[in-house]
Amino acid sequence: MSTKFTINHTDGLARSGVLSTAHGEIRTPAFMPVGTAATVKGMMPESVAKTGADILLGNTYHLMLRPTAELIADMGGLHKFMNWNKPILTDSGGFQVMSLSKLRKITEQGVVFKSHLDGSEYNLTPERSMEIQHLLGSDITMVFDECTPFPVSVEDAEKSMQLSMRWAERSKNAFVRREGYGLFGIVQGSVFPNLREQSAAALQQIGFDGYAVGGLAVGEGQQIMFDVLDFTMPHLPTDKPRYLMGVGKPDDIIGAVMRGVDMFDCVIPTRAGRFARGYTADGEVNLRNAKFATDPTPLMENCPCPACKSYSRAYLHHLFRAEEMLGAMLLTWHNLTFYQQLMQGLRDAIATQKLTDFAESFLARYKKSDTTA
Amino acid sequence: MSTKFTINHTDGLARSGVLSTAHGEIRTPAFMPVGTAATVKGMMPESVAKTGADILLGNTYHLMLRPTAELIADMGGLHKFMNWNKPILTDSGGFQVMSLSKLRKITEQGVVFKSHLDGSEYNLTPERSMEIQHLLGSDITMVFDECTPFPVSVEDAEKSMQLSMRWAERSKNAFVRREGYGLFGIVQGSVFPNLREQSAAALQQIGFDGYAVGGLAVGEGQQIMFDVLDFTMPHLPTDKPRYLMGVGKPDDIIGAVMRGVDMFDCVIPTRAGRFARGYTADGEVNLRNAKFATDPTPLMENCPCPACKSYSRAYLHHLFRAEEMLGAMLLTWHNLTFYQQLMQGLRDAIATQKLTDFAESFLARYKKSDTTA
Repeated sequence: MSTKFTINHTDGLARSGVLSTAHGEIRTPAFMPVGTAATVKGMMPESVAKTGADILLGNTYHLMLRPTAELIADMGGLHKFMNWNKPILTDSGGFQVMSLSKLRKITEQGVVFKSHLDGSEYNLTPERSMEIQHLLGSDITMVFDECTPFPVSVEDAEKSMQLSMRWAERSKNAFVRREGYGLFGIVQGSVFPNLREQSAAALQQIGFDGYAVGGLAVGEGQQIMFDVLDFTMPHLPTDKPRYLMGVGKPDDIIGAVMRGVDMFDCVIPTRAGRFARGYTADGEVNLRNAKFATDPTPLMENCPCPACKSYSRAYLHHLFRAEEMLGAMLLTWHNLTFYQQLMQGLRDAIATQKLTDFAESFLARYKKSDTTA
Repeated sequence: MSTKFTINHTDGLARSGVLSTAHGEIRTPAFMPVGTAATVKGMMPESVAKTGADILLGNTYHLMLRPTAELIADMGGLHKFMNWNKPILTDSGGFQVMSLSKLRKITEQGVVFKSHLDGSEYNLTPERSMEIQHLLGSDITMVFDECTPFPVSVEDAEKSMQLSMRWAERSKNAFVRREGYGLFGIVQGSVFPNLREQSAAALQQIGFDGYAVGGLAVGEGQQIMFDVLDFTMPHLPTDKPRYLMGVGKPDDIIGAVMRGVDMFDCVIPTRAGRFARGYTADGEVNLRNAKFATDPTPLMENCPCPACKSYSRAYLHHLFRAEEMLGAMLLTWHNLTFYQQLMQGLRDAIATQKLTDFAESFLARYKKSDTTA
């Protein structure tokens, strides 16, 4: 029952392995592109798979509002609806309720909120979140938690974490266990070591198929994020996958993998692609920059994506200047490829015990030298 | 020298054949998707080719303003710039100067106009239009003509047509002849039979690789357009391709093919796709219509495009409701496929002397029953 995680190699604290689910295997460390509204923006799902992605993330909050989980279930589930037959992880809705919805009221029972789309009222509880994710058919379901604000006092962080732990237990009780389908707990506790330790212990008491670190990537900065990982990871079981939610930039991912994280999701590569920002081995570039107007070279040498194989920087620049959809399509494709190539590089480096060299070499070249808004 | 046209079959006035150019063969009757700004909006060029398109149309007016013909030439020409290695036809800029630019002044020499993008002034003449299309590397160049307004008096139509004939001669003189590259003349004369006849004769006196019918699809309606074709086509040579510019809807194309037209271009299938309107054997449908929200069937049965093979109407409806790019991408792909399937059907019907049956059968089923704005 549930998902199965196999670690094949370790290098320092880092691990590489395979997470097996109902819809297939996920090579870890894994980056999950975000398919918010049942689509990775600007990408055919076949193309997402070609970038090397083994799994997508779907957003419970967005899908419950539109087109609704019930409709997706009627259409055969999220995989069939969006034509993605590989694994899907869904978040629980907690984060977006906090960041997007209006007029929230949090009680022991759950959260009542108004949709950002039309103002209509919804009630989201651990039980309802499990029901929605079940209707969607997620391979990996996340427990419903409260998204602790940042910064926060230690007292408020503890109250919030304790509530999330009670919701985690209710999530576990409501989750329908099936072969190949897993439920992940989420460690909370903000930046406080003892709270993170208590949260990790409470979750293991309940028992989950994987453990996420939540409440990060909320503006705390990379050093604090790494500090939290440093004091949290030792309290998580070594034989279950660890997922750092909402992270991150390439250097964030490398640092987290070196601290033992196995899974990531982030809108950065897709969002950046829509706003003309491309990732290269030498850092980010803004394709709207006038210096690219006459640049006949590809965005990145030796990149296997179509944007780099078949087009010049001058062409990509032209597409963004002319506000042509193909600009966002190609650059999203490139950025997702860049991220998946990075993950493959990390997996290979771990397998050959060369992670430190790989990370130093990558980071020495990678610099945010050319980022303009 | 120039392009080569071979007619393989005829059925009534209709013909099917092959137009050979520097970048390959075009099966006729042919529909040319429009790639205004060096991209067919929302489509990878590989995908455009997969729909069955043998040739694209590029817009001289748009490309001369941005990124400029000189830049495209520096980048190796339009084919390389936009990664389309099949034939390209470019219009001469005349039509868009009239419909998009500001503060135009027409003289015997040419047109002075201000860019709709930034107000800067440009001078477009037959010689400059030929130079631009040469820089772009078009397989088929169109003569520079004046776009006669509609409706128009017979006196003004004659003056405009005569000016276009003088510009056609200057275009011919400025055109650089090369093997596989052709120059097409454009018949003008509005809705007046004697003017169309004079224009057709004047162009043949100059001599072109193909003959377009211009000044239609400007609001005159299908019946008048067919009338103009009825009295114009007999005055065109039978051994050269005939191109009806800017047309049209599926029923327009069928009627024109039956009157002997070989080539078409139109933004309808791509523009409709971006606005949620899909073509089906039963007419147009608007995917935003609420009745599709729960419709699990494909947009069109037996359509080979990815929108129909892998998705439901409910999913397409969801994408448009959520304003997701993939909606426009998939529906553009479908509409271009629909158009190319229609052209293949017409070619097959001509080859087997069944054009009348094909047209009657198609048109009996095809009805604009569900079009909503």
